[in-house]
Amino acid sequence: MSGGEDAEGGNAAYGRRSFRRSKSHFTDRITADGRDGWPVAAGRYRLVVSRACPWASRALVSRRLLGLEAALSLAVADPIQDDRSWRFTLDPGGRDPVLGIRLLREAYDARETGYPGGVSVPAIVDVPSGRLVTNDYQQITLDLATEWAGLHRPGAPELYPRALRDEIDEVMTGVYEDVNNGVYRAGFAVGQEEYEAACAGVFRRLELLVPRLERQRYLVGGSITEADIRLFTTLVRFDAVYHGHFKCNRWKLTENPVLWAYARDLFQTPGFGDTVDFDHIKRHYYRVHTGINPTRIVPVGPDLSGWLTPHGRERLGGRPFGAGTPPGPVRADEQVPRPGT
Amino acid sequence: MSGGEDAEGGNAAYGRRSFRRSKSHFTDRITADGRDGWPVAAGRYRLVVSRACPWASRALVSRRLLGLEAALSLAVADPIQDDRSWRFTLDPGGRDPVLGIRLLREAYDARETGYPGGVSVPAIVDVPSGRLVTNDYQQITLDLATEWAGLHRPGAPELYPRALRDEIDEVMTGVYEDVNNGVYRAGFAVGQEEYEAACAGVFRRLELLVPRLERQRYLVGGSITEADIRLFTTLVRFDAVYHGHFKCNRWKLTENPVLWAYARDLFQTPGFGDTVDFDHIKRHYYRVHTGINPTRIVPVGPDLSGWLTPHGRERLGGRPFGAGTPPGPVRADEQVPRPGT
Repeated sequence: MSGGEDAEGGNAAYGRRSFRRSKSHFTDRITADGRDGWPVAAGRYRLVVSRACPWASRALVSRRLLGLEAALSLAVADPIQDDRSWRFTLDPGGRDPVLGIRLLREAYDARETGYPGGVSVPAIVDVPSGRLVTNDYQQITLDLATEWAGLHRPGAPELYPRALRDEIDEVMTGVYEDVNNGVYRAGFAVGQEEYEAACAGVFRRLELLVPRLERQRYLVGGSITEADIRLFTTLVRFDAVYHGHFKCNRWKLTENPVLWAYARDLFQTPGFGDTVDFDHIKRHYYRVHTGINPTRIVPVGPDLSGWLTPHGRERLGGRPFGAGTPPGPVRADEQVPRPGT
Repeated sequence: MSGGEDAEGGNAAYGRRSFRRSKSHFTDRITADGRDGWPVAAGRYRLVVSRACPWASRALVSRRLLGLEAALSLAVADPIQDDRSWRFTLDPGGRDPVLGIRLLREAYDARETGYPGGVSVPAIVDVPSGRLVTNDYQQITLDLATEWAGLHRPGAPELYPRALRDEIDEVMTGVYEDVNNGVYRAGFAVGQEEYEAACAGVFRRLELLVPRLERQRYLVGGSITEADIRLFTTLVRFDAVYHGHFKCNRWKLTENPVLWAYARDLFQTPGFGDTVDFDHIKRHYYRVHTGINPTRIVPVGPDLSGWLTPHGRERLGGRPFGAGTPPGPVRADEQVPRPGT
């Protein structure tokens, strides 16, 4: 196992022992100075995601906010992976049109012959060589925000501003442990106690965030940062999958007025909701995790139309993009369905 | 299989084919004139229930509302049944103190030697002979309301008044098919289409009831009837088990203002909420149906404290007990925990 969302889809992860998210295996960084051998360059790399995966979705949001669509192309895998790999079955002929591969595993194997580990998204692949560069879901978005600055669009926001990094890191650490990963520990728990501890952590941390988000529009400072992106990708999945499928059901996000308004605000901000495909999200979780949903039936609920209702958080002040501007429209080939349609 | 809530716990019911609730096998009636050989008599019969089971819970509510506690004694089975039978493991020595049996199956076998079918609650057992009289969950409460009238408390309500029976029956028929049983068809569906049809039926019927319950406090006429009892026993389980476990998740009951107020109103009416044990309900569904919850983990949610909040439905008029009065306090040996404690 490794990295963000594994190809094993969690089934391997909770068969016999507690859920544990392994470290990413490939942690090379793509940097401005190219010190790992992978210099930032327009058109050289391909970001591989599943829109189902919260870890990969961080990169989807960052790429949009920073206007990196042209510089860093995008491959979207089928939300239903098989035991070996995420697959490009959504593409004509079942092959990614740029990398020419059917399975993301091929890029892993090109990097390390006979790679025995799990195949996870997000992944960045070097297009000329077809080799995986990194599947380091914790580092990829930080590098997009900083190392890739030379390719950002005009008006791109500062998602990881130096002056706020300590606070951003602190918030993200708690959110990662208790919320981003906490929902998985709850959902894949093998015993009642382990589940209850994880579930309690999820709601304790979320409730800790409420006073902060009652006072200010974003988690840290007056503008959107990496911390918001990472909380958002969990919150947007909360009612659709974590509430029922992972049993994080003390309350629905829609029942928490502050967090629900915060999540809606981000959803309606260009770069966030326009990356979210609820159909991919629901089908992935409910159809892949047969160990907790053996029927593979995908629930019809919840009603998603509320995501587009007014949130009223403008009154809290702050500027979503700081001194910058919103990203432009979504490319025609990267559109997602509007929720509730 | 037979009757209300089967001992097989539904696992047998959805293994290979669509869920189908079988007819009760033992349909003798206890009547005022004793025409089936079972005359109404104070102290002769024992009502066996699980507080987890919505079908049995109808009888729990009726018995309370009608003040039949002294005339018809109560055995409460463990919410976790095994493959063979509901069990009296909550009682000292694991035996029902009145019937002297460990398993409800023993009363079935006393009635029919080597009875090969399912053992379901509610069941009424003849105490002197130890023989099962009836497990006819559709008839038991109607008979409590009518045939047992001679033993009703002073001030008992008319739960099945002759003048309203056509309307009550019509409402109950739709509610049974789409809601009472519909949630089971959704939860035990073996395929996506079957699930979606059942789930759509659940919410379509519930939404049909909203205009009626917006205008009037109770489903039929101006007072509580059998129709309210039967809708209540499903609604009270809705968010706790049907929403997540059975995937009836378009919305939570708490998200539907009219139905949520209606359900709370009944819950707070003596005879309803004081029969409900959410711990029994949740443990039964989540621990018994391993085919849809293989981990047997019981969710911590939802927050149940809302059941005791004001509902404001007195303004709709009507009299809960008609010309009658509320039942007295719950017997000390039949108390249930307050929700949220």
